Amino acid sequence: MEYETPQFSRVMGYANQAARDVVDMVSGSPDWEPPESLREGLVEYAQGDTERFQYPPSVGLTGLREEIADRRAVDPEQVVVTNGAGEANHLAMSAGFEQFPGSEMLLVDPTYPYYAGRASLLGADTRYVPAGRDGVPDTATVRDCTRQETSVIVVNTPNNPLGATYDRETMATLVDIAADHDALLVSDEVYDHVDYSGRFSSALSFDSPHRAVTNSFSKSLAITGWRVGYAVFPDREGPRGDLFDHARTQHMLTNVTGSRPAQAAVLHALRETGPGYYESVRDRLRRRIDTFTDALDTAGATYTDPDGGFYVMARFPGFSGTFENVERLVDEAGVAGMPGEAFGDSRADWIRFALVSPRVETAADRLAEFFG
Amino acid sequence: MEYETPQFSRVMGYANQAARDVVDMVSGSPDWEPPESLREGLVEYAQGDTERFQYPPSVGLTGLREEIADRRAVDPEQVVVTNGAGEANHLAMSAGFEQFPGSEMLLVDPTYPYYAGRASLLGADTRYVPAGRDGVPDTATVRDCTRQETSVIVVNTPNNPLGATYDRETMATLVDIAADHDALLVSDEVYDHVDYSGRFSSALSFDSPHRAVTNSFSKSLAITGWRVGYAVFPDREGPRGDLFDHARTQHMLTNVTGSRPAQAAVLHALRETGPGYYESVRDRLRRRIDTFTDALDTAGATYTDPDGGFYVMARFPGFSGTFENVERLVDEAGVAGMPGEAFGDSRADWIRFALVSPRVETAADRLAEFFG
Repeated sequence: MEYETPQFSRVMGYANQAARDVVDMVSGSPDWEPPESLREGLVEYAQGDTERFQYPPSVGLTGLREEIADRRAVDPEQVVVTNGAGEANHLAMSAGFEQFPGSEMLLVDPTYPYYAGRASLLGADTRYVPAGRDGVPDTATVRDCTRQETSVIVVNTPNNPLGATYDRETMATLVDIAADHDALLVSDEVYDHVDYSGRFSSALSFDSPHRAVTNSFSKSLAITGWRVGYAVFPDREGPRGDLFDHARTQHMLTNVTGSRPAQAAVLHALRETGPGYYESVRDRLRRRIDTFTDALDTAGATYTDPDGGFYVMARFPGFSGTFENVERLVDEAGVAGMPGEAFGDSRADWIRFALVSPRVETAADRLAEFFG
Repeated sequence: MEYETPQFSRVMGYANQAARDVVDMVSGSPDWEPPESLREGLVEYAQGDTERFQYPPSVGLTGLREEIADRRAVDPEQVVVTNGAGEANHLAMSAGFEQFPGSEMLLVDPTYPYYAGRASLLGADTRYVPAGRDGVPDTATVRDCTRQETSVIVVNTPNNPLGATYDRETMATLVDIAADHDALLVSDEVYDHVDYSGRFSSALSFDSPHRAVTNSFSKSLAITGWRVGYAVFPDREGPRGDLFDHARTQHMLTNVTGSRPAQAAVLHALRETGPGYYESVRDRLRRRIDTFTDALDTAGATYTDPDGGFYVMARFPGFSGTFENVERLVDEAGVAGMPGEAFGDSRADWIRFALVSPRVETAADRLAEFFG
C-alpha cells in the first residue's frame, strides 16, 4: 500500500515548530462550542446504567438510527452509523466498488485527499473531472468522463476545498449519470448545515438505487474527535439492497460497532438542539469569511467566496500553492494554510485556508500586510 | 462478500422472543461495574475544553499510547489505538496478509467466529488446526499445518471459547513457527486480565518481527460498547516495520481515528485503577465458574474448567451443540448459550455459556434440573 505522511500533518508539524506565532488555518476542526446538550448527554451517559456500556447494535444505537432516518426522510433500515464520515465514505466507496461493475472511481479535482487515498486502498483506479470556475463540475463533462469502467463517482457538497454548494439540478443530473452508467454516486454531505446559499440539495432528494449519502456530526456539532457519522444506502428491498448488506458486513467485521458514549451523547444533542445553534455557527462563519476576503482584496488575491463550508481558497499573484510557499507563509507571515497542490492539479496555484480559528482577523491582517 | 446474520444475533434474537424467562449466557458483555474512575474520566472529559473534542492523533491519544506501551513494555511507536479489539484484529490480520507471502490463514478450531469472517473479508483461505483436549493446540500439529501458503496464524489466549491459557513454552513455539515459515502470529490477548492459572504469557514476551498482539479494554474495564483497543506491531526500525506502517495507513483511511471521549476516559481509568479491581473481577468469575460447573456435574455433563476468560463449554449426554438444541434449551430450560457448531467442527457437540450474568446460579439450577 502506498501512502505518505498525510499532507495535513506535514504542514501542521511545520507550523508547530515555527519560531514565531502562527495562526493555524490548516485542519478542519471547529474552534467553537458544541451545543450544551452534547456535554449534558455525555455526562448523563457516564452516570447511567452499566448495561449501556456494552455493545450497541452493530449498525448503531436504534434511537440514533431512527433520529437520523427521520431527519433524512429515509427508512432506519437504510442507515449504518459509522465511526465518523471517514468510515462512512470508506464503506460507501467500498460497497459501490464491489457491487457495481468497473475498476475506476471518478473524483472531482480539486478533491479532499482522503477520497483518493481510499480509492487506492480499495485498489481502484482514479479519474478526475475538473471543477468549473464556480467550484461545481460541469455535468456534461462529468457525463463525458463517466464510462464503462466507472463504478463509483464521489462528490462533496457543500464542497471542501472550493466552498461550492451543488444545486438541485446538478445533483439530479449526477444521480442520472450514475444510473445511466450502472455506477454509484457517493455524495459526502458533511457540511450540509453550513450552507449559506440556501441551494443545498441532498442526493437523498432523488429516489434511486444509484446513490449513497455520507455524513457525520463532526462539523455540525463541532466534535471531529468523537467519530459519529453515518451512511445512507438505497432501499434495502429495492434492486440495490446489496449495498447496505455489504456495508453492514464490512462494518461489523472491521469495527464491530461504533463507540457508544459518543453515539448516546450525539443522540441527546440532536433531540435537544434547535435550528438556532446551526444558524449561529453559520453567522459566525459568514462574518469570518467577510473579514478574511476583505483582507484578500487588499492583498490583491483572487479567491473563492464560499456558498458553504468553512474554507476559502486564494491565489496570490506570483505565489503558487506549493508546500514551499506555504512554509514561507508560515515563517514570514505567521499564517498556515494548505497548499492547493495537495488537492490535485486544478488548483495547484491556490492555497486553502480553514476559517476555524478565532484569530481569522489576525491572519487576514498578516496576509494583507505580507502581500499588500 | 458472503456473510450471514451473525450467529450471536440469531441466538439472542431467539432468546429475546421466548415466551418464558431466559438467562442470557450468549454474548461476552460483562455485567459488572467498570472502575469508578472510568465514569469520572468521562464526566471530566465532557466538562473539559472543546479543543479536546477535536481529532486526536490518528494512532490514538499520545498519553494512552504511552500508557499502553509502558504496560506492555514496548515502544509507543509500535502501538496503534483502535476501535476495539475488532479493528485491532482486522488491522493485524490485514497487515500480515499483505506483507507476508501466502494466501492462507491458520486458525484454531474451535475459533472465535469473527476471525474466520475477517479472513474471508480479506480474501484469505482458512485452514484449521484442532485444539487439544486441554484447549491448547498441540504445537507439533501447528507446525505440521503451517506451510508455504500460510501468511498469518491467529491465536487467542486466554481463549474464547475453550478457556485455555497458553503457557510460555507454547507461545515461544508459536512465535518460532511463524518465524520459520515467514508468517505473522497474531495473538489476541483480550482476556489477559482474566487469567486464573497464572500461566498467561504474552506473545510480546518474545522479541520477534513475526508476532503482533491485539487487545482491548472491553473486557478488562467492562466496556464492550466503548470501542477502545490496540494492536502492537514489531519494532518500527526492525525488519518488519512495514506492518505498523500498513496498519497505520489502513486505520487512517478507514476510520481516520478512534473516538476520543472513550479514549480519554480509559486513559484516566488506567491511571487510577489498581490491581484490586481486576482481582475482584477474577474472584467474582471464579465463584461463578464453581457454581456453574457444580451444576454441570449434577447434569452429568462434560465441561471445560477454564484457566482464563469467562466461558464454560459443556457437552451434555445425547444433546449435541446444534442451533436446534440451543433453541430447545431456551424454551425448555430457560437458559441461552451458544451452539458449539458456531465455533467450528471440533466442538460441535458442545454448548458455550458466557458467565456474564448475575443469574449464573439460576441458570445452573435450571440446567441441573433439565438434564439431571
